[in-house]
Amino acid sequence: MLNPATPAFLDTLRDRLPDAVFRTAGPEHLEEPRGRYRGAGLLLAPGSTQEVATIMQACHAARIGVVPHGGGTGLVGGQVMQEGAAPVILSLARMDAIREVYASENVLVAEGGAILSDVQAAAREAGRLFPLSLASEGSARIGGLLATNAGGLNVLRYGNARAQCLGLEVVTAQGEIWHGLTRLYKDNTGYDLRDLMIGAEGSLGIITAAALKLAPVPAASGTALFQVASPRAALDLLALARDRVGDNVTAFELMHRQGPEFLIEAGLDARVPLDPVPEWMVLVELGLPEGLAPEDSLAAIFEAAVEAGISQDGVIASSEAQSEALWAIRETIPEANRRIGSISSHDISVPLSALPDFIDQGGPALRALGDVRINCFGHLGDGNLHYNVFPPKGRDRNDFEKIRPKVKELVHDLAHAFGGSVSAEHGIGRLKVGDLERYGDPVKLAMMRAIKTALDPNGILNPGAVLRG
Amino acid sequence: MLNPATPAFLDTLRDRLPDAVFRTAGPEHLEEPRGRYRGAGLLLAPGSTQEVATIMQACHAARIGVVPHGGGTGLVGGQVMQEGAAPVILSLARMDAIREVYASENVLVAEGGAILSDVQAAAREAGRLFPLSLASEGSARIGGLLATNAGGLNVLRYGNARAQCLGLEVVTAQGEIWHGLTRLYKDNTGYDLRDLMIGAEGSLGIITAAALKLAPVPAASGTALFQVASPRAALDLLALARDRVGDNVTAFELMHRQGPEFLIEAGLDARVPLDPVPEWMVLVELGLPEGLAPEDSLAAIFEAAVEAGISQDGVIASSEAQSEALWAIRETIPEANRRIGSISSHDISVPLSALPDFIDQGGPALRALGDVRINCFGHLGDGNLHYNVFPPKGRDRNDFEKIRPKVKELVHDLAHAFGGSVSAEHGIGRLKVGDLERYGDPVKLAMMRAIKTALDPNGILNPGAVLRG
Repeated sequence: MLNPATPAFLDTLRDRLPDAVFRTAGPEHLEEPRGRYRGAGLLLAPGSTQEVATIMQACHAARIGVVPHGGGTGLVGGQVMQEGAAPVILSLARMDAIREVYASENVLVAEGGAILSDVQAAAREAGRLFPLSLASEGSARIGGLLATNAGGLNVLRYGNARAQCLGLEVVTAQGEIWHGLTRLYKDNTGYDLRDLMIGAEGSLGIITAAALKLAPVPAASGTALFQVASPRAALDLLALARDRVGDNVTAFELMHRQGPEFLIEAGLDARVPLDPVPEWMVLVELGLPEGLAPEDSLAAIFEAAVEAGISQDGVIASSEAQSEALWAIRETIPEANRRIGSISSHDISVPLSALPDFIDQGGPALRALGDVRINCFGHLGDGNLHYNVFPPKGRDRNDFEKIRPKVKELVHDLAHAFGGSVSAEHGIGRLKVGDLERYGDPVKLAMMRAIKTALDPNGILNPGAVLRG
Repeated sequence: MLNPATPAFLDTLRDRLPDAVFRTAGPEHLEEPRGRYRGAGLLLAPGSTQEVATIMQACHAARIGVVPHGGGTGLVGGQVMQEGAAPVILSLARMDAIREVYASENVLVAEGGAILSDVQAAAREAGRLFPLSLASEGSARIGGLLATNAGGLNVLRYGNARAQCLGLEVVTAQGEIWHGLTRLYKDNTGYDLRDLMIGAEGSLGIITAAALKLAPVPAASGTALFQVASPRAALDLLALARDRVGDNVTAFELMHRQGPEFLIEAGLDARVPLDPVPEWMVLVELGLPEGLAPEDSLAAIFEAAVEAGISQDGVIASSEAQSEALWAIRETIPEANRRIGSISSHDISVPLSALPDFIDQGGPALRALGDVRINCFGHLGDGNLHYNVFPPKGRDRNDFEKIRPKVKELVHDLAHAFGGSVSAEHGIGRLKVGDLERYGDPVKLAMMRAIKTALDPNGILNPGAVLRG
């Protein structure tokens, strides 16, 4: 059993920590952005790794829970503890420095509280690319992005957050510091604790700094929006594109017409420059080496697609502004979704070849539950769909409270039946602890619990996240 | 304390396992290829995952050690246990099937005993590339390659073995089966046990099958050998090449003249087609998208390098045969090394920008220890050098027994001082357990021991490898 964090406990820390560490928790610390989780807790905002270690030592000794807090943008409640003894909320926000950029090594070292867009900018200034990119990049912080193994738009080419990281500095549950901040591209000395900490959602250690991989900036980039006959045709188009330009396809995003219709319905600006708006379309981004013009490569892909009966319409951006306008369609859809209000949102992945069947079967099954609309969009190249279910026009999501659990179960059961995942990129947090128990491999779960107990015997690290406390 | 594997113990298994499982251990199981490790043990060669589980259950109950055995090509003694109670040697050789190729998903599922060259061939047949490539690919097996997180020639572009794997099937110390053979590119449901098993060298579980990532075959490939003025110039050339073609540089191998000289001395055929043979040279491979001729891209890189004073001589392959002849130089050097016989071999990595200083300081320091020759070559783009120390011409390595420990310590201390690794791609095995204790982060080591105890409480999995038993 854990003890609650109290003002008296914080007082015991005052002679070991500077005043700046002691803050008052605000709504941004106590509520999840969409208001679905509300919690309690006392805020500490350390300014150094040593201060994090001091706090962890004290919490470990006193058996007080610690909820790490980065940008607070998580979608599964990993950042808010709403049950149990009030924890210390450990904000990394003051540890937001870019410690160093090693341009010639393609490495950047950032503190856990560094904001993603600041890291991207520092890389750009050094003539390099930090490819991790997602909607919340203006507020999400590196520690949280790694703790949740964030995905986003460029996973197809560059992998998820885990693939962008070379080394970590981590404070353990006991308040010891693992100095694993290596800039090495190859190091086979012992177990991969880096990848264990990445994706553990703060339940195994606190990520205080990371050595991040930078990539060369592609010599030229290009964007196109292609109509496709179906999700299956979209997969064929992906294969065709990769046959021609290999891994230089940096993004491949599927959108159903429902998305652009929601943009209009929600009063948002972005518009699809194809008439009629196709039922299915893909947004394609290429990053190419010197000597190739992206417009030409995209045109060649389009011609081949037309010849193969995969696509009939499309638009290729001929300027940076046009490229941004195409991306704005995809990037504004989440905001449209928020305004319209989903009955249930899902972040599923299935094996690539099962994706068309998943979509074919999901629609009718959901509509058998009620008069719903589906906005199906996402990172097709990764097999990852944001498959979100909405009320019909003019109706409110609250009218569908009753079928919400059924909707979620149907979508998750179907993804699982296809060998898929019920959390492709958002993680488990507190929202999906039951899903993990329901769908997870029992041997994997037993190993996870054994590791959790081995590394955090008092169970103080993000209690109730990932694994039931 | 572990109990020895005895014929009587094997007899208790005969009613649960088919006769084909019971084999006689040969020299290939009891000796490391170079004869540096000799061990004991009784051989079992299961034909299925369930049979592996049955064996592990029995060994766990009887507290008998299990040494997993793949192709037996490891260089650090991970596959041979020469101290302690005789173990069961668990050969995966009979489990060598390619279970399935999912070409449209870029996924291939292979059993742990599948030989790397067979996996490469199956990928090729499906019009795809399995990029893992190394000298022992004709005998190394997937389970061992993953257990050791093998590196090789294409890490710069495609990453090491860990980066090529989507999912695993693993038998635990207790004989349970983790069905983690996912074909998903994104799955954030719980701790990353896949990457924990990869690189654990069989000390946390037995890898019985893997879902492997395939890559698109580059539309065209090209090879060149460029003289460079120095290792620093080689790094500048890498930066220049990546500025132009980005991540399409698939290999970037540094060679010192000592390598080609060893080829002649050892009576091997491969020759450098540059006159004079440069002191330093790099082998560059590009894999390019459609629309680019590799010869043109390589010529443009060479011209820019000449202009920048980085290179003065070079040769660009204009046929597959010429490309193979250039690669033969690099790939024959390890055989030349074996014939000449090193005093001490090292597999180190350092941060890229520290590499020239490491080379500058290493040579004089080693020559102060004795009259030695250094063959420095390797995966420069990864910061990984095979930095091997040899006797002068006509002398035998045995004459240098006395300085061998000093040589190793000097090289490892220097790599460590630069923030490097003493095992970039070969792993710890039994050879480097002391190095890990000497150079490893103590907090990391404590976490590793806690995880080992949590997952293998009886300590039966590859006893003495990675961590002292």
